[in-house]
Amino acid sequence: MTKFDEATQAIRVDETTYDVCLDPGYSIGGPLNGGYLMAVLLRAVVDASPHDHPVTTSAQFLRAPRPGPAQVRLEKIKTGRTATMARATLVQEGVSFIEALVTTATLGDVTPDWTDGPSAAMPPVERCVKLPDPKPESGITLNAQVEMFFDPPTIGWLDGRPTGRPEARAYFRLAEPQDPDPYVLALAVDALPPVVFSAGKRGWAPTVDLTWHLRALPAPGLLTLIAGGRLISDGWFDEDVEVWDSAGRLVAQSRQLARVGRG
Amino acid sequence: MTKFDEATQAIRVDETTYDVCLDPGYSIGGPLNGGYLMAVLLRAVVDASPHDHPVTTSAQFLRAPRPGPAQVRLEKIKTGRTATMARATLVQEGVSFIEALVTTATLGDVTPDWTDGPSAAMPPVERCVKLPDPKPESGITLNAQVEMFFDPPTIGWLDGRPTGRPEARAYFRLAEPQDPDPYVLALAVDALPPVVFSAGKRGWAPTVDLTWHLRALPAPGLLTLIAGGRLISDGWFDEDVEVWDSAGRLVAQSRQLARVGRG
Repeated sequence: MTKFDEATQAIRVDETTYDVCLDPGYSIGGPLNGGYLMAVLLRAVVDASPHDHPVTTSAQFLRAPRPGPAQVRLEKIKTGRTATMARATLVQEGVSFIEALVTTATLGDVTPDWTDGPSAAMPPVERCVKLPDPKPESGITLNAQVEMFFDPPTIGWLDGRPTGRPEARAYFRLAEPQDPDPYVLALAVDALPPVVFSAGKRGWAPTVDLTWHLRALPAPGLLTLIAGGRLISDGWFDEDVEVWDSAGRLVAQSRQLARVGRG
Repeated sequence: MTKFDEATQAIRVDETTYDVCLDPGYSIGGPLNGGYLMAVLLRAVVDASPHDHPVTTSAQFLRAPRPGPAQVRLEKIKTGRTATMARATLVQEGVSFIEALVTTATLGDVTPDWTDGPSAAMPPVERCVKLPDPKPESGITLNAQVEMFFDPPTIGWLDGRPTGRPEARAYFRLAEPQDPDPYVLALAVDALPPVVFSAGKRGWAPTVDLTWHLRALPAPGLLTLIAGGRLISDGWFDEDVEVWDSAGRLVAQSRQLARVGRG
């Protein structure tokens, strides 16, 4: 079992309750990463489903849970032949932290009927760069779990040179070697720095809603994350992330609506 | 009160229950339009919220309800200073038809910090075309409630000339004159023919998840709907819709994951 598999495991208590242990290794400086929390939630949902894959997940983030024991509470909404729908709630000490609606289904290994290409080009991985290690006092531990190689202009904001538009692009893999799977994709869709950093904003950008769709099972190898946004207004911004696998397939799509940080 | 306002009204029974009456005038040939159903649901959510606008809505569609009396059941998830989150369920004869998570907030009339332009150009409205009236036996009544003027190539599939990619573009307004508001936008994000028609697919394309974000309050006048998709595979497709108002502002963004029809 890899560290990621262990950090996201969900132990069945009964039909509607799973015990989980939120790992301090996925902190983004206090709060735990939302993608990590979705991966935990989805382990429980898929375990309880007759279907194999979390095809669509809509999560609303209410509060930031602390590391430590928590529960996933499930409610069956509909069990169908093609798809099963459930409500999942991440609960800690009786308080809800994430509310999600999840549809599970079983994806096949098929050739797409039609596919678009990536919405932006990436330079080869040799020309991409890592983020500097976070300072220990930042409390950011997530960076140790993942390896990301960034398209350099999209992290120009680190040196005071933001591109002026919301964007972020990077190759992604777990630091401990592991083939990507749907739970790794749940982490990946929320792993980039907020796209608004590249538009000159700073500070923690809390996600309000993150909806993502699993479109295919990823091939082994590096993932490519391409993120952008359309509008920053009235304290709100959208962030779209496409995830492409090493075989050039679109494997996940996410969109989140988040608040612009005050930092 | 306009016909649309009447068809979407939600009458408070108590803190958690609203009575609604699903109007047969929003049928797409048997099932009622999903955008119309979201508008009904959102009337109840906003009425029960201290905030004014449905900023983000994630809806999963379980079954197709029939016209007639139904209820919206609400559950408060979190009431905050900036935003309030609720769960909303559309129930008919004790059965759930739509499960939604909705965040309400109050949007201001502000200048965006940053905005992208539309993802595709539209010809002037004079060069756009209406769909032919549906045959009475089709059971499609929605078309009488809305006026849409399509970018001609995107409805080439009607004459056996699909463009070969998932897309749809049209100007939109209600048939009965009414300024657009968030409820009209809920209808608008699901009003276009499925984008897969333009890629050569046919048949009813049931929505599984539709998530949309209200980004600004729309100015009076025609709305512009620009829809596309990235992948059609394994019986699933995504449909993204941008809604622009007459002042050139991005007022709504939606993405749905749906099943490809068998028709």
